[in-house]
Amino acid sequence: MKAIVTVMPKPSVLDPQGAATAEAMKHLGLESVGRVRVGKSIEIELPGEPNEEKLHEIARDLLSNPVIEDYALEIVR
Amino acid sequence: MKAIVTVMPKPSVLDPQGAATAEAMKHLGLESVGRVRVGKSIEIELPGEPNEEKLHEIARDLLSNPVIEDYALEIVR
Repeated sequence: MKAIVTVMPKPSVLDPQGAATAEAMKHLGLESVGRVRVGKSIEIELPGEPNEEKLHEIARDLLSNPVIEDYALEIVR
Repeated sequence: MKAIVTVMPKPSVLDPQGAATAEAMKHLGLESVGRVRVGKSIEIELPGEPNEEKLHEIARDLLSNPVIEDYALEIVR
């Protein structure tokens, strides 16, 4: 079993890394690129049946900063 | 249209950030956690039909380090 937590900056928060990445893409020939957001992808291997409540708690308290980031939790069976 | 590039450390490469995250999860009560890998998730907004070949080139040359990282490209219509 695997859980994937994706942590992205909230849309309302300035993302300088995303802006710099977008500029670099334009220089590499992708003129039509719109907004770019850069976040984290965390893959967690779990031996048995996952404790989703505990995973949400960890995603919220350890893996993301709820003030400036949103997270999504996906369980891959 | 949106493209999502996920960049993860190759399985054969040591991932100290992933190891530290796994330890922290155990302290927060998720004893059964296995291997944890930490990577990047890059969301790219594209106005028209995406140029997949150009996106692969950018994912390989700009967004990832092919020596130690693998990337996956997903187009979200």
